This record gives sequence, structure tokens and C-alpha cells, in this order.
Amino acid sequence: MKKLNRNQTINYFTPDLEPVMTVDLNEQFKVETHDCYGGQVQDEHTSRWDINRSIINLATGPIYINGLKNGDVVKLDIDHIELGSSGIMMTDEGLGVLGDTIEVETTKILPVEDGLVKFSDRLSLPVKPMIGVIGLATKQDKIHTASPGPHGGNMDTTDIKAGNALYLPVFQDGGLLAMGDLHATMGDGELDGTGVEISGEVTLTATKVDGLLISNPIVESPDHFFFIASAETLDEAIKIASQNTVDHLVKVLDEEYAIAYRLLSAACDTRISQVVNPLVTVRVQVPKTLLPKLV
Amino acid sequence: MKKLNRNQTINYFTPDLEPVMTVDLNEQFKVETHDCYGGQVQDEHTSRWDINRSIINLATGPIYINGLKNGDVVKLDIDHIELGSSGIMMTDEGLGVLGDTIEVETTKILPVEDGLVKFSDRLSLPVKPMIGVIGLATKQDKIHTASPGPHGGNMDTTDIKAGNALYLPVFQDGGLLAMGDLHATMGDGELDGTGVEISGEVTLTATKVDGLLISNPIVESPDHFFFIASAETLDEAIKIASQNTVDHLVKVLDEEYAIAYRLLSAACDTRISQVVNPLVTVRVQVPKTLLPKLV
Repeated sequence: MKKLNRNQTINYFTPDLEPVMTVDLNEQFKVETHDCYGGQVQDEHTSRWDINRSIINLATGPIYINGLKNGDVVKLDIDHIELGSSGIMMTDEGLGVLGDTIEVETTKILPVEDGLVKFSDRLSLPVKPMIGVIGLATKQDKIHTASPGPHGGNMDTTDIKAGNALYLPVFQDGGLLAMGDLHATMGDGELDGTGVEISGEVTLTATKVDGLLISNPIVESPDHFFFIASAETLDEAIKIASQNTVDHLVKVLDEEYAIAYRLLSAACDTRISQVVNPLVTVRVQVPKTLLPKLV
Repeated sequence: MKKLNRNQTINYFTPDLEPVMTVDLNEQFKVETHDCYGGQVQDEHTSRWDINRSIINLATGPIYINGLKNGDVVKLDIDHIELGSSGIMMTDEGLGVLGDTIEVETTKILPVEDGLVKFSDRLSLPVKPMIGVIGLATKQDKIHTASPGPHGGNMDTTDIKAGNALYLPVFQDGGLLAMGDLHATMGDGELDGTGVEISGEVTLTATKVDGLLISNPIVESPDHFFFIASAETLDEAIKIASQNTVDHLVKVLDEEYAIAYRLLSAACDTRISQVVNPLVTVRVQVPKTLLPKLV
């Protein structure tokens, strides 16, 4: 199986990325990833002010996927996520929604073993591995890997995990996929500004989806579709995700717009992905009992 | 069993409500409720402009609960919710997050039978009965039943349902409980501005919780605690709910503040209750595997 080493990274999603590996559609492949600090935090004495901030949220890639053309939609099946042996969380003044209540900076290395993240002598949490950053070459913008957008990027969405699939609009031939910023676990919102930041290895498979037109990422789980949107405010992101969902319900269910809008309100859950990145991210969760398929 | 008829209602939560029924702690009782339109919508020809808006979101009560004093915390076990036979949804220009895309007003009467809400000839949704408005007399403010706050009120939180319990801070002796605005089903967010609005009957039991100090409502489900907060913006509501959660984790788990903040970020999910009322409402979902009990 082809595998891309984590020494091949980008820090911006742009329209003209140079591929460092090529895979075929339906070919399973592996991608090694850095933690979001690019491996710069080796112990608890490392301050976030010691870190070279220009290599935050490195994404391993770009990978050219043969057979994808500008205007296509790619489905990325996330087959497996293998985590490193320890995670990192940083707490500091100004970080996260309660940043103004923190006075002392702390860097914590959290052991990850036997499916648990160890927080303190008494407290462990089960791992819930997920991908923070995953995206394709953009249509025209130069977007830092710390930011999300229609191309994917730093969506920090807990449902981007093994067993689920991510649909992305393809803006450049070959897609030009890159990913990184795994979390051993994270709550919806990423409220203190970090998940359990960790390196690892992702196994995935790309397929092309015919007949689907999307303007923003969608995630599929066994029971739901999630319509993702990012914007400067939560209100704006919710509006975009709602509009994408209603438009899709109208098309696939062949129902009136007003009925689709009522179904959105009555059956779909607005969920928060993250509130701490340059743009915030939400998703509208649509049950498959309502929308069995995207096309 | 004592039962309060739906002709006994309030339209404001205030400090000096006059009780219309009295129950004891640990005594199960029933409350009949109006739909949020106060029963004014009898057919699909009724426009929302025909309705007397001064009796929107009527709450049945107030009920004096013997044994509750100002400064206590009451736990309301929601034992059962019985729904009426049809629900109402309204769609109109300006209503909900996509209100600017709606041009024609529609009022829909949706049959509710055999556990299903019938949306169209082809589409039904399973009922998920919940209470939109439930609250106590306020500390000092006069708050319309259409608005949420520390006293409860129009929280429109899908987890306020049978099998769960609601904890509220008691600001006046006897609590002075009132409720209404049931939904046959609703998605998190209430994105078009309405759930499936329906009348019904709620069966519940009140107990007093010793040793608990809270400033905002909390919901308990079999697997989670939900720390609820309402504010003018989602950002502000998330900050309040996060602060309440972290303070509670520090107290109950006896862990350092920074550890509690990291646990919030790593293990707790920010969830949206509603984005369409005078104040918006969110909740932070804390797994009981992390926080087994409130006291």
C-alpha cells in the first residue's frame, strides 16, 4: 500500500499545489501526519511561545488522485486512524472560550494507551480518534491549514473519523489532498482551543461520486449526513449549512421548498464543530431515515 | 393525581406569581398545556397575523410546590408527555434562519398518530415529545414566556423530555412552576422558528436537591448532564455554559481549574438548543462517565 511520509507537508491550501504522491481512485493508501504543533512539543517545558508558529497545523500531502477533474465530487472513505502514543493539550491566557480566566500557561503531555487518554492520576477518557485538518486544493484562494472552508481544511469536526466518509468538491484536477492535526479525542466546540493533539497515520480510499453537486463538505456516517459550513460567525455558518441542507432535501426528496424547510426545523440537528479557529464551523445533522442518500 | 387544567395560564414569569394549584415534594402531578399559539390555530387558513400575539407561548401554572424555599434547587422528573392529535408548523417571510428565502406564508396542520408526524403524503417523522417552555418564578425580572433565562422559560431544549430531569434554581418560596409549548418533534436549533407545535399533558414529580448550588438550568439524562445557558449571542451563551460546567467539574471532581478546562474541551460537547427566541440557548453535554453526579 502506498504511504506518504509526514516529512511531506503543506501549510497552505492553494489552487496550484505540487503533488508529492499519486494514487488511483479506489486504491487504499496511507498518510502519516504530524500533531498540530509539527512535533515541536517534546515535553511539558515547551511553551507555545517557544514554537515556530509558521509551521502550525501542517498537513501531509498533496496527493494527486488520478481520475478526478475540476468540478467533480470526491468521497474519501476514512478506513482507519492509528494514533501516536501521547497527546498534547495547551492551556493559556486568551486560549479558547474561557481564555480570560486562565493566568498560568501549561503544556500537558497526555499518555495515550490501551484506548485511553490519561488526564490525571484519577481521570482517563476513551480515545475518539478524528481528523482535524483534511482538504483539497482551493478554487482560487490561499488558505492557511489552520482555517476551514469549502475546500475542507481545519474543520475540527468530530464526525470526520474512521468508518465515516467525507465528500469534498474538487476544484483542481487530481483534487490534491492533504491532511493532519489528528485528535485522540475532542468535544464538539473544541472549547479550550485544543483537542488532544496527536500524530498518527490515516488509511483512506477515494472514489468519485457521479451526479452530485456540492459547494461545501458533507460527512456521511452509518446513520446521518452532516452538511458542514464555516464562516466568521456561528449565525452565518448555521445559515449556510441550513441553506445547503434545504436545497439538498428539495432536490433529493423532490419536495416543495417550504416542506424541506419544515423538515430541517423538525428533524435536523444543528451541531457545533469548533468555535476557536479563524472561521467557526457547524454542521447540520440529517438522519438517513429522512435522507437515505445524497444522489 | 392532581391535574392542572390548561385554562390556568401565565404569559410572564415574574417574582410574584399567584399559585393556582399546590403540590407536595415527591407527589406526582399532571399539567395540561396549550400549543404555543394558545389553541388559536384550528385550520390551515389561519395566518400567524390573525393570531392574538399577546397570548403566544402560554404556560400552564403557577404551581406552588410545598417545601421549596428561595435558594433551593428543585429537580423535576419528567415522567410522561402525552401529545395531542395534531401539530402545527408555520412558515413565513422572516421566520427562522432562512426566513429571507420564504415569500409565501403557510400554516400546516400535521396529523400526529401512531407515534408519527405526517409531513406530506410520502413523509412521516417519528415523534420525539419535548417541553419547550418550563420555568419558575424569577428572582426579580418580568420575563415573557417566549424567552429563556436562569429561571428556565422558553429553552426549547430537545433533552427536556420524558425520562429526563430538569434542575432549576428556586428564586421564590414554592418555586411557582409553569409550563407549555410542547413539541411533537424538533431538531436542535429550531431552525425555521417552530417545532411541531402541539398541546398535551405532562406528568412530573418534584424533589428538592440538597447541597447543590446552580445559577442556570441543568438537564439530566441517563447518560449525560447538560449545562444550559441563554444569552443574546451564541458566543456569549457558550461562554456562560462553559464557565458553569468548568466550575462544576472543579467542585465535584476536586480537580485543578486547568484540568477541568481541558476536560471540557476534550470530553464535553457544545450543543445548540435554539437560535430563534429573544435569547438563544445552548447546552454543554457532559458524559456521566466523566461527571457521575451533580453533588
